Amino acid sequence: MSRFLSSRFATLTPYTPGEQPQNRKYIKLNTNENPYPPSPAVTEAIRASTGEELKRYPDPTAANLIRTMAEYCGVSEEQVIFGNGSDEILAFCFLAFCDRKVPACFADITYGFYKVFAELCAVEARIIPLTGDFSINPADYHRAGGTVLIANPNAPTGMSLTLAQIEEIAVSNPDNIVIVDEAYVDFGAESAVPLTLRYDNLLVVGTFSKSRNLAGARLGYAIGDSKLIADLNTVKYSFNPYNVNRLTLAAGKAAIEDRNYFTDCCNAIIETREFTTQALRDAGFTVLPSKANFVFVKNDRLHGEEYYLKLKERGILVRHFTDARISDYVRITIGTRQEMETLIKTTKLILEAIQ
Amino acid sequence: MSRFLSSRFATLTPYTPGEQPQNRKYIKLNTNENPYPPSPAVTEAIRASTGEELKRYPDPTAANLIRTMAEYCGVSEEQVIFGNGSDEILAFCFLAFCDRKVPACFADITYGFYKVFAELCAVEARIIPLTGDFSINPADYHRAGGTVLIANPNAPTGMSLTLAQIEEIAVSNPDNIVIVDEAYVDFGAESAVPLTLRYDNLLVVGTFSKSRNLAGARLGYAIGDSKLIADLNTVKYSFNPYNVNRLTLAAGKAAIEDRNYFTDCCNAIIETREFTTQALRDAGFTVLPSKANFVFVKNDRLHGEEYYLKLKERGILVRHFTDARISDYVRITIGTRQEMETLIKTTKLILEAIQ
Repeated sequence: MSRFLSSRFATLTPYTPGEQPQNRKYIKLNTNENPYPPSPAVTEAIRASTGEELKRYPDPTAANLIRTMAEYCGVSEEQVIFGNGSDEILAFCFLAFCDRKVPACFADITYGFYKVFAELCAVEARIIPLTGDFSINPADYHRAGGTVLIANPNAPTGMSLTLAQIEEIAVSNPDNIVIVDEAYVDFGAESAVPLTLRYDNLLVVGTFSKSRNLAGARLGYAIGDSKLIADLNTVKYSFNPYNVNRLTLAAGKAAIEDRNYFTDCCNAIIETREFTTQALRDAGFTVLPSKANFVFVKNDRLHGEEYYLKLKERGILVRHFTDARISDYVRITIGTRQEMETLIKTTKLILEAIQ
Repeated sequence: MSRFLSSRFATLTPYTPGEQPQNRKYIKLNTNENPYPPSPAVTEAIRASTGEELKRYPDPTAANLIRTMAEYCGVSEEQVIFGNGSDEILAFCFLAFCDRKVPACFADITYGFYKVFAELCAVEARIIPLTGDFSINPADYHRAGGTVLIANPNAPTGMSLTLAQIEEIAVSNPDNIVIVDEAYVDFGAESAVPLTLRYDNLLVVGTFSKSRNLAGARLGYAIGDSKLIADLNTVKYSFNPYNVNRLTLAAGKAAIEDRNYFTDCCNAIIETREFTTQALRDAGFTVLPSKANFVFVKNDRLHGEEYYLKLKERGILVRHFTDARISDYVRITIGTRQEMETLIKTTKLILEAIQ
């Protein structure tokens, strides 16, 4: 820390991204990326954007991409904004919709970045614990008294709420915004996008990093009432107007348009998740019921950190969190069928070795 | 504005980017882009990054790109950070180094985004007027009492300070940071990067949008004392850790490595700037002495806005600012020699028509 850093940030603890090893080749099941490459149409679209025009700023309004997305989602163009990954969109949301008088309300166990955003923006974090079985009880969010953040499905549990439960939370917070972070929604949960047409306080945030195979291109979005989107644009144009580059604009459009590829990838991941869940349960694991592209698992014979370390030794990266409430668990991203078979085989060897 | 927007932003006026027309084809001299395409090596590097790995998050530490840049600049790797364009880097600087007690000090006529960042971050903007001839007087910045921002060369004037003048400002503000925004430095001014090795309060910000032909890819950076860079990383990892995508990481590295292409483009632009300056002076214009890839010009027979509008009618876009002090002027980006010949020919026709 330099002597110049604002005293506001003297105790700021940044987010710790999952390991991104650049050297050793791991089976990488730690950051919830898609195991399949982007659609060939996406590759083609990027290559077509590498020419002369790259010398020009991108369209700051992202008009073409927004048109494509709005049509895909059945909303109007004024209801969509894109960002440099959904982290940027979430940061904009904290800036726009939280302040000293409006706290951020979210679960104790959820995406770890929410509490970092709250600290960055000097906003109170009002923590609403998950129930004993790691589920979200919508009643705990009635009149939350601040901006509500719900990851649906939740991370790192993978557990989801129904649309009726999301609606209940929106209805019971008429004076505050409810932000539904749908990073993992395409793997089996229900999107709340249609509800945004009826509730002006409901904002859906999403990403192209998971179900759209584009973590490396950085693209996220929010969908909601046009006034909420206008507010987010006010922040965007005061922070970084050209926030999505030309290559990613093209990639995103092509990714939306190749619907079959998207569906095929999601279905393959869902199928592999069900296979993995069953195989781990057969091996004595507790596996929370996941609608995401990861599973959250524990085995009473093996502490979470130990399991994580033993897998890493054997060339498989998963994610372990040190929070006391979940330190018994590890989060395992769903890879290809072959990768998950290797994971299960390796896991059985680890369990045998400690018998 | 929705009823949910934080009251802090009730009067926030976002930055207005230059027009980015998506329909009609203009000779586009309004946003200071490079008239030449990126190096063929850059195109090649992007194409090589469109494969399978795009499904993976980029390296959040940008290690390869930073290594290349550090070597190029003769600094250590801990002295460099990259961002999603220099606007993002500047936003991080305002967050890190300004607050309610530390104002931002900058010229009345300079990059228009500084005052937006100040407003976004609820930071006082302490305005230090340019002298009568639009130059920066370093003595006006002695003990400025806050974080100093100097665009060098300045925009939209194009006028530059010497290294000795920058050093004088750094020395005379021992308790505050001096940020030198070198977006346009490669077109004839002197970079303060070597001074960052001697002054722990000097931070240089730069961009690949101008001299590196990559406005469409979004890449900016800061270079300074490793503690300042650590502070900026604290903000980055609390805002958007994966802020530079894989394609842009690859493009940036290739752009630095193709030194000849860079030099050739800069030299061509400098030569065309000198040609344009002379031709406009011959036509009766005042042209401020520019070290940037644009010229700031006025003609007593033609108000700035009128000149801008008449050029636009004729298919040439330049930028006009409504600030009273500079509303007589327009800013003209240096394009190719052919584009500038068209500009001059068109300008002469406009002048003839009003005789």
